[in-house]
This record gives sequence, C-alpha cells and structure tokens, in this order.
Amino acid sequence: MASHPLLVAPPEVLLKPISVPHRLLLGPGPSNLAPRVLAAGGLQMIGHMHKEMYQIMDEIKQGIQYVFQTKNRLTLAISGSGHSALEAALFNLLEPGDSFLVGVNGIWGQRAAEIGERVGARTHPMTKDPGGHYTLQEVEEGLAQHKPVVLFLTHGESSSGVLQPLEGYGELCHRYQCLLLVDCVASLGGAPIHMDQQGIDVLYSGSQKVLNAPPGTALISFSDKARDKIYSRKTKPYSFYLDIKLLANFWSCDDDKPRTYHHTTPVIGLFSLRESLALIAEEVLRLPTVTTVAVPAGYNWRDIVNYLIDHFSIEITGGLGPSVGKVLRIGLLGYNATRENVDRVAEALKEALQRCPRSQL
Amino acid sequence: MASHPLLVAPPEVLLKPISVPHRLLLGPGPSNLAPRVLAAGGLQMIGHMHKEMYQIMDEIKQGIQYVFQTKNRLTLAISGSGHSALEAALFNLLEPGDSFLVGVNGIWGQRAAEIGERVGARTHPMTKDPGGHYTLQEVEEGLAQHKPVVLFLTHGESSSGVLQPLEGYGELCHRYQCLLLVDCVASLGGAPIHMDQQGIDVLYSGSQKVLNAPPGTALISFSDKARDKIYSRKTKPYSFYLDIKLLANFWSCDDDKPRTYHHTTPVIGLFSLRESLALIAEEVLRLPTVTTVAVPAGYNWRDIVNYLIDHFSIEITGGLGPSVGKVLRIGLLGYNATRENVDRVAEALKEALQRCPRSQL
Ligand SMILES: Cc1ncc(COP(=O)(O)O)c(C=O)c1O
Ligand SMILES: Cc1ncc(COP(=O)(O)O)c(C=O)c1O
Repeated sequence: MASHPLLVAPPEVLLKPISVPHRLLLGPGPSNLAPRVLAAGGLQMIGHMHKEMYQIMDEIKQGIQYVFQTKNRLTLAISGSGHSALEAALFNLLEPGDSFLVGVNGIWGQRAAEIGERVGARTHPMTKDPGGHYTLQEVEEGLAQHKPVVLFLTHGESSSGVLQPLEGYGELCHRYQCLLLVDCVASLGGAPIHMDQQGIDVLYSGSQKVLNAPPGTALISFSDKARDKIYSRKTKPYSFYLDIKLLANFWSCDDDKPRTYHHTTPVIGLFSLRESLALIAEEVLRLPTVTTVAVPAGYNWRDIVNYLIDHFSIEITGGLGPSVGKVLRIGLLGYNATRENVDRVAEALKEALQRCPRSQL
Repeated sequence: MASHPLLVAPPEVLLKPISVPHRLLLGPGPSNLAPRVLAAGGLQMIGHMHKEMYQIMDEIKQGIQYVFQTKNRLTLAISGSGHSALEAALFNLLEPGDSFLVGVNGIWGQRAAEIGERVGARTHPMTKDPGGHYTLQEVEEGLAQHKPVVLFLTHGESSSGVLQPLEGYGELCHRYQCLLLVDCVASLGGAPIHMDQQGIDVLYSGSQKVLNAPPGTALISFSDKARDKIYSRKTKPYSFYLDIKLLANFWSCDDDKPRTYHHTTPVIGLFSLRESLALIAEEVLRLPTVTTVAVPAGYNWRDIVNYLIDHFSIEITGGLGPSVGKVLRIGLLGYNATRENVDRVAEALKEALQRCPRSQL
C-alpha cells in the first residue's frame, strides 16, 4: 500500500481544553438539563442491542405513551432532532401524489410544507399571518376542497407564541378520511395534550424543551389508522434510517418478530431521555412554555438579546421566520420554570431596557 | 377547552432508578467512552446557536479534516448515526434515474444499494461473497458497463472483517466521471485513510467506534467535485434534515452567508465528539479495529458470545448479514485497544471454549 505524508496537521484549537460557559437558557429551547438528566449523560456506554438497553427503550416507550396520553403500540423515539421526527412522519405517511394539507401560521408549518413538497406530495398550505390559529370551520373548508390524506397542525407555534386548539380536529379529519399530524415540540408538558381522546393520529415532540433532555432524540407515536396507512404503502419511504416499519421492529412495537439491528441508537441520549420522562412520571407537569413578548417600540430586539447574554448569561431569543424582528421569546421550560428564573429574567430585561439604545419614535 | 381524564397512568418502571451495567465493549462498536469523552457528556447545555457552540463546531470541522486528511471546506458532523451520514451522502449525490454502482461484499454495501433504490437511482450491485474485496480491474469493468455517477465502497467491512484497498480507486473513478463514496465507519483510526491523496470524493464515519464517542453524530466530508454535483442538482433532496446545502450554511462551510437556524444539533453529543477528536489530535492513532475470527468447528457462536457477557461482562458479537453464524467479531476500538483488554478477551474465550457445548464433528 502506498504510504502518504500527512497533509493536514493536528489542529491547534483541539489541543486546548473545551470551553463551555454556564448559561441560564430561557430561550424557546434547548433548556437547561435537570440534574438527574445531566447525571445520565455522564454514564458509561452499553451496547445498543444489550438487553438492558432494550429494557430502557421499553421504559422510554411507556414514558412517551404517558406524556402523550396514548395507548398506541407504535410509539418510539427517533434518533434525531424534532425535524427528523417530522420527516419520519411525512416520509412514512405520504406517497408521491398524495394530497397534504398544512396549517402555515409560522415557521413550523412552512417546514412541513417544504418537506411535503420534497417528497412529491400535492401540498396545500393554508397560509395565515403569524399569531393566528385555525378554526374548525377553516379546517373543514380545506378538507372539503383538497381531500388530503394528512393534515399538519402545530400545537405550540413557538415562532409566534400561538396555541392551536385541538378539540374536535381529529374527529373532523376522520370524517374526511384524513389523518391528523400534530407538532407538540414546544407545547408538550406546557399545555395539556391527550393524543387518543383528541383523535390525533401522529404526534411528535423533541427532547430539548420541557423535557429538559439534550437535543438529539425525538418522541413519536402513531395511531392504528396511521399505522394502517404506513403498512399499506405501495412504495418504500425514501429513508431507510427513518423507515417506521423497520424502527417498529427495533423498538419492539410489533410484538411477534425478534429485534434485528437497524442502526446504532444514541445510547447516552436515550439514557437522558429516559430520565427526563421519569421526572415527568414523578410529577405531572403543567407549565407555561414559550412566552412571546412584543419588542418595545423603538428598540432593536438584537440589542436586548445581546444585553442579556453578555451581562447576565441569560439566553432569550428573537422571533423566527415570519415573527423575526417583532417579538422576544422567553422560554420557561420544565426544570427552568421557576419563580426565581422569572424574577431573574424580569430584572435583566428591566436593566436592558434602560441601557439599550432607543430610537426616536 | 374540554378537559380529559388521564387515560394512561405514570408507568411504574419509570419510578425505579435507571439500570446500566458496567461492560467492557469489545464488539465492533459502540466502544467504551474514553474518560475525557465521558466527562464531556456530563456538561451542562448551551444553545445550539451560541457563539461558543459555533466555536466548538469549527473545532470539530478541523478535527474531521485532520482525521480524514482533507482540506475540503465542506466538512461537518451529521446529527445522526452512521446510517444517516450514508443517507446524507446518497440523498444529496443522487437524483432519480442516476446510475449508482455499489460494492456489495457485506451488509454495508447491501444498505447502500437499498438506499440507492429507495431514492430512485438505477442501482447496480457488484455482489461478492463476504470476505472478498474489489480489485481495480473489477471496478473498472463496473464503471465502463454502468457509467455510474457514484461508486460506493466500504473501507472496513465490519460484517466480514475485510479491508478494501483504496489506492488508485479515486483516480480510476474520475477517469470515468464518477464520484467515489467511501464508508470508513469501522476503519477510521484503525487503517490509514488519506481522503485528498486517495481521491475520495465523499467520506463518512461514525462517532462510536475508534473515536470512543457516544453514537448519535457522524463525520462527513465532500470534495469540490462532489460539492459541484450537489450544487448543480435539478431537484431538491428528499430530506430537509440532511440537505447538505442547508447544513453547509449552518456549519459555516460556505463562508459568505451568515448562519441561519436549520435544526437543533445534538449539543452534548457534539461536546463529546469534539473531545474524541481532540484525543486523536493529541496522539496519532493507528490501531487495529475489528478482528474477525472463524467460529471454531462444532460451536454455536451464540453460546460463546453469551458466555462472555454473562461470565465476564465482555461484549463481543457474531457476524452480521452475510457473515451471520460464520464468524465472531472482536473490536478493539481506540481507548479499548489495550494489551490488557486483549489478554482479558483471550482468557475469556479460552474458558468459553472449555465450557460451551460442542457438537460431534
Ligand atoms: C414547535 C417546534 N417544532 C419543531 C421544532 C424543530 O425541532 P428541532 O430544532 O429539534 O429539529 C421546534 C424547535 O424549536 C419547535 O419549536
Ligand atoms: C462499516 C460500517 N458502516 C456503517 C455502519 C452503520 O453505522 P450506524 O449503526 O451508526 O448507523 C456501521 C455500524 O456498525 C459499520 O460498521
């Protein structure tokens, strides 16, 4: 074998220690880790196919069933962020040419529509200004007009701060032979969700918000109706990594078959997720999540955000997508949702408003 | 809003503490975490868009450039396992109808071919019995016959224990206007790899093998030729999560544009990956990785594997895909590659061969 000289030298920056500041994360996520979740992140590895790992995966499944309030057997964690759960849903539910109806009242609907288009669905956005939600009547008009196989709604629209009501939407969709797919990444644990009783067919969330676990795993569950649609596909989903039939086997959601290797799951991330679900099982959380505040007239939102991080090591953020420049977003997620943190951020904001430049109105 | 009763009670299993045994992981991966990597897993969160995180991402990029021996600007970590890096490569390189040539001499080639078919490429497997590799002549025949846009080869075939030579393959592919895509998930750090000098266009690896980091992040790099193919696509890749153009922006691989939010990266997993790359920058690793041993005649491989885990808490594994039942696979990955561990596994195997049932030959 030819031997080659080293073209690239060991990078100097890697010879210095890692530098991670202490921050109070009061943005719309990720949030700080609860101490017990933090401890799980420091555990040593075991194999992704060891029986103890299967046990932990089973515990995670039960934890998701609990926080989603569902008895769905097809419930598991995706090895990726919230977006990969959205892709898992759409890659598996939609086939090319399927009609897909999307509530676009902020960035998350935009993303769902974008992915729908990528996979070749006939995608119909119901576009609204950020701040609005969808009434049953509006949804019914969309269902009647487009005869979609899937409707996407965002429960907690973290870019605009809107909570979408969910009572009656599942039933309505089912009357039109449509599946209801709901994003509860930002709302889970903050606003009640009852997947089965609300007739939601696919529900997903992330680990890094109210659950206070690190980003990198996502929660997802499928109703029997959604499962039937997936199992009667004519085409294979584009992704092998996110193929729900294969994941259902690895997560032992179809009891009969032995588990076979699919991919290496994020073992340590799953330890952390398990612990975050255990914390929720111990105390039923009902917390506010992301509070949206209009940027006070005359101020630039960036000045305020930068002031808080530089002077208080507190993260809050500005708007996202359609709400950029208009709002500040303050997250009080799970473990971070304490009266003390509310006081800290309020004090910090007060000082920021005194010190940041304000243009003439 | 209608209020619903709780249908699903808090799961009892989550009220018990998490149970993770101590294991010496001498399978083909994941491996045990190096102490410094373990410590990084216990760090507190920061935001995925904080400037300190961007700094860590830049350090990771440089670390990957070093371990891959490449100057490619389009170098980054994928937020998923080895399979998601393979999908990132194929989703972005291939368009429907493109010709794709795949060396299938074990499970990894099978997976690449499967994904090629899912995305609608005209996929041409060059199938070989496990244990074989591809000569330059065989590859040239495939290139001449199928005129592929991409050739896939596995450097370290961890299901069969074969090391694919890589000298001259890049040059050969380029003569046929084909890009060379190489999987070095199992070989990185164990067998020399020189991406630029070997003319490899896309190279990817996992975090959980010789790097001794937790699974959940993957390394990938693209040559200018590969980049050109991606940037001149006529269609968008099916996946938004794995869209390299968007990831290139978030990882600041195209210097000119400011970073915009794409997805929430696995912050803690990236801390760990950074530390594992730092360890490699400190000492140039040249270690054996996965050793494949034929199952001694008359023994069932499962008995031996179970004996080691039950009596010694040592993980080794059997074959995978085409090599199932034929081989035992012993991984000595990075931090786990010590003389002491070799002695421990040899002792354990000796005892296992004495105690496990042996059929008449
Ligand atoms: C409502 C909502 N949906 C989806 C996402 C995307 O999740 P991720 O960034 O983990 O991919 C977010 C992230 O902030 C969100 O707030
Ligand atoms: C050579 C090779 N390629 C790809 C993979 C897949 O990686 P992952 O399991 O992280 O998805 C593996 C995993 O063992 C491997 O050994």
